[in-house]
Amino acid sequence: MRTVSRTNQRTVPPPIQVGLLGYGTVGSAFVRHTTGPGVPAPGVHVKRALVRDVRKPRPAGTPPDLLTTDPSDILDDPEIEVVVEVMSGVEPALTYLVTALERGKAVITGNKQVVAEGGHILRRIAKELDVPLCYEASVGAIIPVVHTIQKTLAADRVMSLRAVLNGTSNYILERMAVGLPLADAVKEAQELGYAEPDPSDDLSGRDAAWKLAVLFHLMTGDAVDVNDIEVTGIENLEAGEVQRLRSEGQVVRLVATAERGGNGQAKLKVGPEILPLTDPLTQLKGPENGFEVHAEVAGRLFLAGPGAGPAVTSMALLGDLLQAARLVRAKRSAEEEPMTVKVGSP
Amino acid sequence: MRTVSRTNQRTVPPPIQVGLLGYGTVGSAFVRHTTGPGVPAPGVHVKRALVRDVRKPRPAGTPPDLLTTDPSDILDDPEIEVVVEVMSGVEPALTYLVTALERGKAVITGNKQVVAEGGHILRRIAKELDVPLCYEASVGAIIPVVHTIQKTLAADRVMSLRAVLNGTSNYILERMAVGLPLADAVKEAQELGYAEPDPSDDLSGRDAAWKLAVLFHLMTGDAVDVNDIEVTGIENLEAGEVQRLRSEGQVVRLVATAERGGNGQAKLKVGPEILPLTDPLTQLKGPENGFEVHAEVAGRLFLAGPGAGPAVTSMALLGDLLQAARLVRAKRSAEEEPMTVKVGSP
Repeated sequence: MRTVSRTNQRTVPPPIQVGLLGYGTVGSAFVRHTTGPGVPAPGVHVKRALVRDVRKPRPAGTPPDLLTTDPSDILDDPEIEVVVEVMSGVEPALTYLVTALERGKAVITGNKQVVAEGGHILRRIAKELDVPLCYEASVGAIIPVVHTIQKTLAADRVMSLRAVLNGTSNYILERMAVGLPLADAVKEAQELGYAEPDPSDDLSGRDAAWKLAVLFHLMTGDAVDVNDIEVTGIENLEAGEVQRLRSEGQVVRLVATAERGGNGQAKLKVGPEILPLTDPLTQLKGPENGFEVHAEVAGRLFLAGPGAGPAVTSMALLGDLLQAARLVRAKRSAEEEPMTVKVGSP
Repeated sequence: MRTVSRTNQRTVPPPIQVGLLGYGTVGSAFVRHTTGPGVPAPGVHVKRALVRDVRKPRPAGTPPDLLTTDPSDILDDPEIEVVVEVMSGVEPALTYLVTALERGKAVITGNKQVVAEGGHILRRIAKELDVPLCYEASVGAIIPVVHTIQKTLAADRVMSLRAVLNGTSNYILERMAVGLPLADAVKEAQELGYAEPDPSDDLSGRDAAWKLAVLFHLMTGDAVDVNDIEVTGIENLEAGEVQRLRSEGQVVRLVATAERGGNGQAKLKVGPEILPLTDPLTQLKGPENGFEVHAEVAGRLFLAGPGAGPAVTSMALLGDLLQAARLVRAKRSAEEEPMTVKVGSP
């Protein structure tokens, strides 16, 4: 019988030391969720956070000495066991994450672009070196769609996916359905914090395409070039038309679709669709995201919820981190405690 | 820097050896999904399966020498690293699972009763001994609601839950809404394989109450006595009334509700409710289950899909198993390979 007694010796393990890459709205929410008494994740300590400019004004409560502009303060620090990345864009994020994995650091990322374009590289290294790599927060924030495709349905076969992947455009389409012109709806979304100052990736469908590429890779194991996805945005829709359709019981949504085809003939596209009210994607409120996943054995699964926002995304990163922590701690104890008992085994 | 080189030595790990407790419709689907070429889970080998009677007729393809009536053939076998339990009822399942955990075997269960009534015991032992314990399949089959509450929202705080937890009663209510009398709808559900020969736990709400107890324990960490849940069934509903409400745009569902109250004043109940068509629980088709989870930071999450069935439940067990396998293999390699390098650490 295998011995399990050595695990009894542990009581409260030392906190997981985290290096944060990026300190924007999500990064600062993440630090807030892990610092001070009564926080939701007390076993996590953010040691350093990488920024471009340390002199830029930061939220109150930013710990002194947290910020650095030197990535080696994180990547070369052997005490840091987990790297949490909340930058945007592919580089330099991808280079940092590759380095982190190669050095045995677990990686948690909320950056859809780095996963869409470099996910196949990151997954290969993480698998080879048996280091945790988690990216639930990169698509649909806290909606567990990455887990569902990657883990829950691991033994099944996801055949197709239909999803609303961009909360900003969903909010805008809802406002257009009551007659608000596109430009006014965009302005409103910006005032509410849903849309970035430059909302072009949301409106053009490009944000949804990155996320679709992430999900398709999970579905099939195949990397997809985002530029190969057929993408139509909502920039040219007219509020009057969206409103007229709505009055007839039809709802316009920006829908991303992926179908696993035979012989690598996959179909991926993003574009506005006119849906009947019986379609669950029409039930999404404001900036919510929704995912309809079709698997060979399981049939239809539907997931919906908040797909963006700093606090929600931080919670998703923490959810990933607390799962990775178990493997990090298992490795830590395997490396720190010399085995005294050799256990018989097949 | 921590060393990761030893993991490079591994290529294809030997299969995970599984002992199966129970060999009914779910158990035999599980063996089918893990045996032979081209199966979804090739890294898994079911070594033995515990049954009450080896002479009972079994599905074609049942491997010879698989079945045993002696639990010690599984619990005392050091080669078996994972126990998958698909019996029903609290005992003897609970005793078997406690023994398995104490012997360092990972436990995967799809048995709602053992988790509802013994989950707090199993979780305590699993945590103390750092052995994987997974029970996604015990509530909502492959809908990842256990993962969502336990892992995705680990850093958040689930405040309340509304759910349709019993697919059989949902199907029956749908049929009553088109005028079919209760008894006829039950018969139809039995013919379709949704309802058991004795459907009383489905109709009385008791099946939903067990599942609600499992979810409430996940929400709060508090064990709840199923007998303390206020339960009303659908046995006394009249098809004419359900149909009349439906014609007025109102839908009857058997809804389970849990609210985290202040000072341990939790509210848990199961009973029929009249819902407007805008409620997402009214969108569930036939025997689907649905879960509306409200968390403090994340807000509303909604999950829906097939909540029962042998093949779907087997897929959920396999999803859990493939996740647990990673920890099982990490422990296996830590125990088998004496460490040659002592690594510096805080």
